[in-house]
Amino acid sequence: MPLERLTMLVVTDSDATLVVPELEAPRVDPGPFDVHPWGEIENPIEIVTRLAGRPTIAAVGDQTWSVFLVRLLARMPETTFLPASAVMSELRIRKSDDEIARLRAAAEAVDRVLGRIASSVRFSGRSERDVSRDIIDMTLEEGHETAQFWIVASGPNAASPHHEPGDRFIEPGDVVIVDFGGRLDGYCSDVSRTFSVGEPSERAAEVHAVVAEAQAAGRAAAVVGTPCEDVDAACRRVIADAGYGEFFIHRTGHGIGMDGHEAPYLVEGNQRPIEPGMAFSIEPGVYLPGELGVRIEDICVASDDGLLVLNQADRSLLTVE
Amino acid sequence: MPLERLTMLVVTDSDATLVVPELEAPRVDPGPFDVHPWGEIENPIEIVTRLAGRPTIAAVGDQTWSVFLVRLLARMPETTFLPASAVMSELRIRKSDDEIARLRAAAEAVDRVLGRIASSVRFSGRSERDVSRDIIDMTLEEGHETAQFWIVASGPNAASPHHEPGDRFIEPGDVVIVDFGGRLDGYCSDVSRTFSVGEPSERAAEVHAVVAEAQAAGRAAAVVGTPCEDVDAACRRVIADAGYGEFFIHRTGHGIGMDGHEAPYLVEGNQRPIEPGMAFSIEPGVYLPGELGVRIEDICVASDDGLLVLNQADRSLLTVE
Repeated sequence: MPLERLTMLVVTDSDATLVVPELEAPRVDPGPFDVHPWGEIENPIEIVTRLAGRPTIAAVGDQTWSVFLVRLLARMPETTFLPASAVMSELRIRKSDDEIARLRAAAEAVDRVLGRIASSVRFSGRSERDVSRDIIDMTLEEGHETAQFWIVASGPNAASPHHEPGDRFIEPGDVVIVDFGGRLDGYCSDVSRTFSVGEPSERAAEVHAVVAEAQAAGRAAAVVGTPCEDVDAACRRVIADAGYGEFFIHRTGHGIGMDGHEAPYLVEGNQRPIEPGMAFSIEPGVYLPGELGVRIEDICVASDDGLLVLNQADRSLLTVE
Repeated sequence: MPLERLTMLVVTDSDATLVVPELEAPRVDPGPFDVHPWGEIENPIEIVTRLAGRPTIAAVGDQTWSVFLVRLLARMPETTFLPASAVMSELRIRKSDDEIARLRAAAEAVDRVLGRIASSVRFSGRSERDVSRDIIDMTLEEGHETAQFWIVASGPNAASPHHEPGDRFIEPGDVVIVDFGGRLDGYCSDVSRTFSVGEPSERAAEVHAVVAEAQAAGRAAAVVGTPCEDVDAACRRVIADAGYGEFFIHRTGHGIGMDGHEAPYLVEGNQRPIEPGMAFSIEPGVYLPGELGVRIEDICVASDDGLLVLNQADRSLLTVE
């Protein structure tokens, strides 16, 4: 649990010990690790430094709270710390067949949710928050252990890529970005589609067509051996050519696996070639301030036999009520 | 958002600047701060270090990811970092009347959920996970913006204080710990009650009576001027005298406010006296491995006129179906 009580796996050349709060110990499955529970009046930082010794270099979990690293720094002044992703990223960036199967199961589950949204969720006259509640419920019903995020961004709110669903009531004529995901069997889902409440305006249909073309160009470019940044460039070119370049304000994609966002990132500057087993999102978008936003996102896995596109839900601008 | 894209408020003697990913900028209400959006191909650590200058000491958010602190350390080798709680804790530890009102509203909301659980939630024959889904739904229905945790620990699972609700089907004769909370109007709730599915066993009734007496002793001890650790000792004494001392495996309580867990902690070693406006949980428990667990928790606020106990839901061992 990411809490003020430290849980930390300490790995040295010879040992691997899970330092864990005593009250969490009953739910630990230690696997191959030693377990060192610490009581409420012990100092876990002392335990960790004793186990770690005096290494020249140590890696610390990317998401470990800084309050713990600050305390480790004070006790290990001769150690240089690196982010653990420096080691872990290479172990995780190419997914095994088993991992791909889990990502596929998670993607299929959110695709089923998208199908249910298109066929049976009412948007008009309801708040973004209420629609997001439906999405959370369906994500869990379709087998996810947790729903982790649930963007429902309607009308002008959709111009904010990470808009938090709020009290705005959705109206006929709105374009709505739905972007959600969670974790199933330890692996993450993440998918976006854009819906039109009633018939779309000409502008909405035009922007959606541009984004759909860009997203298809990204999928076509994501070939083994191609630099990650070229997939980004392929999407960006379509959007720029249509005159919306300045409104595509984020990278094209991120890796996905046990974390929702991990390497590789599909972004300008990342020259690493795509390798078989890399799993990532392709999710271009266009965001017109005060007006509307459109995003289309699939999770994909690179392979020597071509790109596996795990999400297959309808990518068109579906009309909902 | 706690993501791999850095969002950081940089505060110097003269300026306060929010460094924020460009794609998050549309949803920022800057208030009194300058805003510095950074694009996907910029390095936010460079921006932060340029704004920060070369301070001798800097504080970094307790929950800031270590990956960012590691990068700051590499660029600011002459700076000693402290956890921001060294500064923020004193600003937050005594709640204002407005904050107490918000904590009260959050506590009243989860009390209503507890009332609904006691009167209308079926336990027997359902999985812990299904019951936890009901609790999440009701927490949101009663006005919370988010549900943040939802422990439903039945039978022997209740011996693990932070048990994660799973597939176990709840049976008649089980004792079930329910411990949940979330955020309402920016402030956290956190409450625990223990239920009996059908008539409780003698053992369950006995352990519950001990915990209830301990919890009452804690509330009686939480007087302004009393050291925090004395409240812990007051609870612990009752449980030890009844012969269950070794099974009370966690501290008595934690502060609560904008975070679910914050200072002050009611734990042996914390000699800080209780001050008016301090808000904290009082939550002793007894955990018998392989058998059962019992916990009772209220959020309380210290005042010169005596302890305000924000949670008032029935503390007895209520029988549910």
